[in-house]
Amino acid sequence: MHDIIIVGGGPAGLTAAIYAVRYGLKTLVLEKSVIPGQIATTDVVENYPGFPTIAGLELMDRFNEHAANIGVETKISEVKTVEDNGNTKTVFTHDGDLEAKAVIIATGADPKHLGVPGEEELIAKGVSYCATCDGPFFSGEEVVVIGGGESAITDALILSNIASKVHVVHRRDELRSSKILQERIFAKENVDFIWDTVLEKVIGTDEVEQVVLKNVKTGETTDLKTSGVFIYIGIVPNTRMVDVDKDKYGFIISNEKMETSSKGIFVAGDCRDTVLWQVVTAVADGAIAAVSAYEYITGLEK
Amino acid sequence: MHDIIIVGGGPAGLTAAIYAVRYGLKTLVLEKSVIPGQIATTDVVENYPGFPTIAGLELMDRFNEHAANIGVETKISEVKTVEDNGNTKTVFTHDGDLEAKAVIIATGADPKHLGVPGEEELIAKGVSYCATCDGPFFSGEEVVVIGGGESAITDALILSNIASKVHVVHRRDELRSSKILQERIFAKENVDFIWDTVLEKVIGTDEVEQVVLKNVKTGETTDLKTSGVFIYIGIVPNTRMVDVDKDKYGFIISNEKMETSSKGIFVAGDCRDTVLWQVVTAVADGAIAAVSAYEYITGLEK
Repeated sequence: MHDIIIVGGGPAGLTAAIYAVRYGLKTLVLEKSVIPGQIATTDVVENYPGFPTIAGLELMDRFNEHAANIGVETKISEVKTVEDNGNTKTVFTHDGDLEAKAVIIATGADPKHLGVPGEEELIAKGVSYCATCDGPFFSGEEVVVIGGGESAITDALILSNIASKVHVVHRRDELRSSKILQERIFAKENVDFIWDTVLEKVIGTDEVEQVVLKNVKTGETTDLKTSGVFIYIGIVPNTRMVDVDKDKYGFIISNEKMETSSKGIFVAGDCRDTVLWQVVTAVADGAIAAVSAYEYITGLEK
Repeated sequence: MHDIIIVGGGPAGLTAAIYAVRYGLKTLVLEKSVIPGQIATTDVVENYPGFPTIAGLELMDRFNEHAANIGVETKISEVKTVEDNGNTKTVFTHDGDLEAKAVIIATGADPKHLGVPGEEELIAKGVSYCATCDGPFFSGEEVVVIGGGESAITDALILSNIASKVHVVHRRDELRSSKILQERIFAKENVDFIWDTVLEKVIGTDEVEQVVLKNVKTGETTDLKTSGVFIYIGIVPNTRMVDVDKDKYGFIISNEKMETSSKGIFVAGDCRDTVLWQVVTAVADGAIAAVSAYEYITGLEK
């Protein structure tokens, strides 16, 4: 039996593991994909202190190296469910069941889908949620970006260097992203902005051909020819595997010690109900969750 | 007038500044010393994700470089008081008064003093709170370390490589520090442990000559000749300059948005009432405080 199983090997999970191993806990990190963490799909990170500018994938490499250095054991395995049996927890995976005294859920979040007609059918055929991943397919073509927050503008900037034209479609009349990104995007000559507008429909047979947009003030709809639609309207937490208290969006509710409604099950990072989802907050969550788990396990033994 | 003045240029303050500048806020960091942050006096940091092992001073250099890169303005100036005048705040410094719409208190904490006879009189004459700072003065001599937590054992390890002998005096019968540090310290041949014992008195004329120890179980006192006493019994927050709600130790009370009891005054890092004081939590606090300050200032303008 492990002392602690950490579900998710992104920044939150790996930091929890670094702290747990330092505290002498027998620790296992379960990660479903080879390259974990939303951050790995981020082009450039400029707000993780200590690295003025670093590729998301490289930052994730640094975290992995740090964890490996200290002896963190990681296994590629998808978790189906986590069951609370009181003093032990069972983690059901596709490769068998595991037992631990405590579990930290650090499963992160995925981009939210809009749910408009054509969206699901055309994923990977022009509909995307990640410019770093799919941007290069649209070299010299016109693309549409949906959203006005930090992620939308970060990726619109990437696309502006690849595509011939980027249309940023936002449901408000001003961007929500940081000023530094706003200045950069407004300076791009091949980017225009379609304000007060939402995506109604994606049209295409084998690939995206056009989108239908709707002005939320006038109700007017317009067609726009495009070969790519990049959607940035928020995140959905990966929390279905565990039955603890969650908010209406599925984010796990916790206190400042990262304790969930189940004793011995802790949470960290993007899947947590919190005020800011960033690498810098995910790593802090991970550290706190590990220390809380350590205290919980030590208490069990007394 | 600045949008935001950040009091303190350690990890929390600089991260707050990085986020604030990215959000387009006119930001000033006030720091009283040339080398800020308790972390700068830490020999080796091994739990800030991304840097498997780094000197505290070098990590602080990285944060400074990151902040400077992004255009953060820092001024060496000691803050006397922060006054809340509603929509503006006045920051009184030894170099004049400054105005800002919001203030983030990121003043950190200092090592706590024990308050035993001889302690204050013999500071810098053998009494120290920082092995990285003062350890080298005790080459080949015997020293005493008071405490059993992470800081005590970190510094006892440093001292074991400098001093001929290190006596770790702890009021309990086991260490509180992480297992990884416990394994390292127990492997040192020139370190012994005096359990269930506290420091009663420091004796010396021009410099430390001996200490008086007391066993808390038997009440017995013993004398121990030593030339150095390193004390690690916790931290005291630097929060006297601001009149907001604090806990009984002086740590500033805040909610998860880093809001204090005064609207427009935020807090981050070691001076905050929280569950874990680490670099990794300080930077997260800083990011959250900046985003909350941004929302507060934007709200003011509406």
